[in-house]
Amino acid sequence: MRATVLVRPKPGILDPQGQAVEGSLRQLGFGVTSARVGRVVDVEVAADDPDAARAEVEQMCEQLLANPLIESYEIELEGAAR
Amino acid sequence: MRATVLVRPKPGILDPQGQAVEGSLRQLGFGVTSARVGRVVDVEVAADDPDAARAEVEQMCEQLLANPLIESYEIELEGAAR
Repeated sequence: MRATVLVRPKPGILDPQGQAVEGSLRQLGFGVTSARVGRVVDVEVAADDPDAARAEVEQMCEQLLANPLIESYEIELEGAAR
Repeated sequence: MRATVLVRPKPGILDPQGQAVEGSLRQLGFGVTSARVGRVVDVEVAADDPDAARAEVEQMCEQLLANPLIESYEIELEGAAR
Protein backbone atom coordinates (compact mmCIF):
# COMPACT_ATOMS: atom_id res chain seq x y z
CA MET A 1 0.00 0.00 0.00
CA ARG A 2 1.32 3.39 -0.96
CA ALA A 3 1.37 6.27 1.51
CA THR A 4 2.28 9.90 0.96
CA VAL A 5 3.67 11.82 3.93
CA LEU A 6 3.79 15.60 3.95
CA VAL A 7 6.26 17.04 6.46
CA ARG A 8 6.08 20.78 7.06
CA PRO A 9 7.74 23.23 9.43
CA LYS A 10 5.27 24.08 12.22
CA PRO A 11 3.77 27.59 12.23
CA GLY A 12 6.15 30.02 13.91
CA ILE A 13 9.21 27.87 13.23
CA LEU A 14 11.83 29.68 11.18
CA ASP A 15 11.92 28.39 7.59
CA PRO A 16 14.98 29.80 5.80
CA GLN A 17 14.33 27.71 2.69
CA GLY A 18 10.80 29.09 2.46
CA GLN A 19 12.09 32.64 2.92
CA ALA A 20 14.59 32.11 0.11
CA VAL A 21 11.88 30.74 -2.18
CA GLU A 22 9.56 33.63 -1.31
CA GLY A 23 12.28 36.18 -2.05
CA SER A 24 13.20 34.54 -5.34
CA LEU A 25 9.57 34.32 -6.46
CA ARG A 26 9.11 38.04 -5.73
CA GLN A 27 12.25 38.87 -7.65
CA LEU A 28 10.82 36.93 -10.59
CA GLY A 29 7.74 39.16 -10.39
CA PHE A 30 5.25 36.78 -8.76
CA GLY A 31 2.72 38.13 -6.28
CA VAL A 32 3.35 35.84 -3.31
CA THR A 33 2.77 36.78 0.31
CA SER A 34 4.16 33.63 1.90
CA ALA A 35 6.08 30.49 1.01
CA ARG A 36 6.95 27.53 3.22
CA VAL A 37 9.00 24.54 2.18
CA GLY A 38 8.74 21.01 3.54
CA ARG A 39 9.28 17.45 2.35
CA VAL A 40 7.07 14.89 0.69
CA VAL A 41 7.90 11.22 1.23
CA ASP A 42 6.20 8.47 -0.78
CA VAL A 43 6.56 5.09 0.87
CA GLU A 44 5.36 1.70 -0.25
CA VAL A 45 4.53 -0.33 2.86
CA ALA A 46 4.02 -4.07 3.03
CA ALA A 47 0.84 -3.79 5.15
CA ASP A 48 -2.34 -4.14 3.06
CA ASP A 49 -4.81 -3.11 5.75
CA PRO A 50 -5.35 0.69 5.72
CA ASP A 51 -5.46 0.97 9.52
CA ALA A 52 -2.31 -1.10 9.96
CA ALA A 53 -0.55 0.82 7.17
CA ARG A 54 -1.47 4.18 8.71
CA ALA A 55 -0.29 3.08 12.14
CA GLU A 56 3.02 1.91 10.68
CA VAL A 57 3.56 5.14 8.73
CA GLU A 58 2.79 7.16 11.87
CA GLN A 59 5.56 5.27 13.64
CA MET A 60 7.91 6.03 10.73
CA CYS A 61 7.10 9.73 11.06
CA GLU A 62 7.73 9.76 14.79
CA GLN A 63 10.98 7.83 14.51
CA LEU A 64 12.55 9.07 11.29
CA LEU A 65 10.59 11.08 8.76
CA ALA A 66 9.71 14.13 10.85
CA ASN A 67 11.11 16.00 13.81
CA PRO A 68 7.93 16.31 15.95
CA LEU A 69 9.44 19.25 17.86
CA ILE A 70 9.53 21.55 14.86
CA GLU A 71 7.62 19.74 12.10
CA SER A 72 4.07 18.55 11.59
CA TYR A 73 3.17 15.66 9.34
CA GLU A 74 0.14 14.58 7.37
CA ILE A 75 -0.41 11.04 6.07
CA GLU A 76 -2.43 10.23 2.96
CA LEU A 77 -3.07 6.61 2.05
CA GLU A 78 -3.65 5.90 -1.60
CA GLY A 79 -7.24 4.97 -2.29
CA ALA A 80 -8.30 5.53 1.32
CA ALA A 81 -10.67 8.16 2.71
CA ARG A 82 -8.67 10.99 4.27
CA MET B 1 -5.31 31.96 -2.32
CA ARG B 2 -3.20 29.15 -0.94
CA ALA B 3 -1.60 26.56 -3.19
CA THR B 4 0.32 23.43 -2.29
CA VAL B 5 2.92 22.22 -4.75
CA LEU B 6 4.33 18.70 -4.58
CA VAL B 7 7.66 18.29 -6.35
CA ARG B 8 8.90 14.73 -6.82
CA PRO B 9 11.80 13.08 -8.61
CA LYS B 10 10.53 11.57 -11.87
CA PRO B 11 10.34 7.76 -12.10
CA GLY B 12 13.72 6.36 -13.07
CA ILE B 13 15.62 9.37 -11.75
CA LEU B 14 18.12 8.46 -9.04
CA ASP B 15 16.90 9.56 -5.61
CA PRO B 16 19.73 9.17 -3.07
CA GLN B 17 17.68 10.80 -0.30
CA GLY B 18 14.87 8.29 -0.89
CA GLN B 19 17.34 5.41 -0.87
CA ALA B 20 18.77 6.62 2.43
CA VAL B 21 15.28 6.92 3.95
CA GLU B 22 14.35 3.44 2.66
CA GLY B 23 17.51 1.92 4.15
CA SER B 24 17.00 3.64 7.48
CA LEU B 25 13.35 2.58 7.68
CA ARG B 26 14.36 -1.03 7.02
CA GLN B 27 17.04 -0.87 9.69
CA LEU B 28 14.37 0.36 12.10
CA GLY B 29 12.36 -2.77 11.25
CA PHE B 30 9.70 -1.27 8.98
CA GLY B 31 8.44 -3.30 6.02
CA VAL B 32 8.95 -0.81 3.20
CA THR B 33 9.60 -1.73 -0.40
CA SER B 34 10.21 1.77 -1.73
CA ALA B 35 10.70 5.35 -0.55
CA ARG B 36 11.02 8.51 -2.63
CA VAL B 37 11.64 11.97 -1.24
CA GLY B 38 10.55 15.26 -2.77
CA ARG B 39 9.54 18.72 -1.62
CA VAL B 40 6.27 20.33 -0.66
CA VAL B 41 5.94 24.09 -1.14
CA ASP B 42 2.98 26.01 0.29
CA VAL B 43 2.58 29.39 -1.37
CA GLU B 44 0.07 32.13 -0.71
CA VAL B 45 -0.61 33.89 -4.01
CA ALA B 46 -2.30 37.24 -4.46
CA ALA B 47 -4.58 36.00 -7.27
CA ASP B 48 -8.09 35.17 -6.03
CA ASP B 49 -9.36 33.51 -9.17
CA PRO B 50 -8.57 29.75 -9.12
CA ASP B 51 -7.68 29.60 -12.82
CA ALA B 52 -5.39 32.62 -12.57
CA ALA B 53 -3.81 31.27 -9.38
CA ARG B 54 -3.16 27.87 -10.94
CA ALA B 55 -1.60 29.45 -14.03
CA GLU B 56 0.66 31.60 -11.87
CA VAL B 57 1.76 28.67 -9.72
CA GLU B 58 2.48 26.64 -12.86
CA GLN B 59 4.80 29.41 -13.99
CA MET B 60 6.50 29.38 -10.57
CA CYS B 61 7.07 25.63 -10.92
CA GLU B 62 8.56 25.96 -14.39
CA GLN B 63 10.81 28.85 -13.41
CA LEU B 64 11.88 28.09 -9.86
CA LEU B 65 10.16 25.44 -7.80
CA ALA B 66 10.88 22.37 -9.90
CA ASN B 67 13.50 21.21 -12.35
CA PRO B 68 11.24 19.94 -15.17
CA LEU B 69 14.04 17.75 -16.54
CA ILE B 70 14.18 15.49 -13.51
CA GLU B 71 11.18 16.45 -11.38
CA SER B 72 7.42 16.35 -11.79
CA TYR B 73 5.09 18.66 -9.96
CA GLU B 74 1.48 18.59 -8.83
CA ILE B 75 -0.52 21.67 -7.84
CA GLU B 76 -3.38 21.63 -5.34
CA LEU B 77 -5.39 24.79 -4.77
CA GLU B 78 -7.05 25.12 -1.38
CA GLY B 79 -10.80 24.74 -1.62
CA ALA B 80 -10.70 24.03 -5.36
CA ALA B 81 -11.64 20.85 -7.18
CA ARG B 82 -8.50 18.90 -8.08
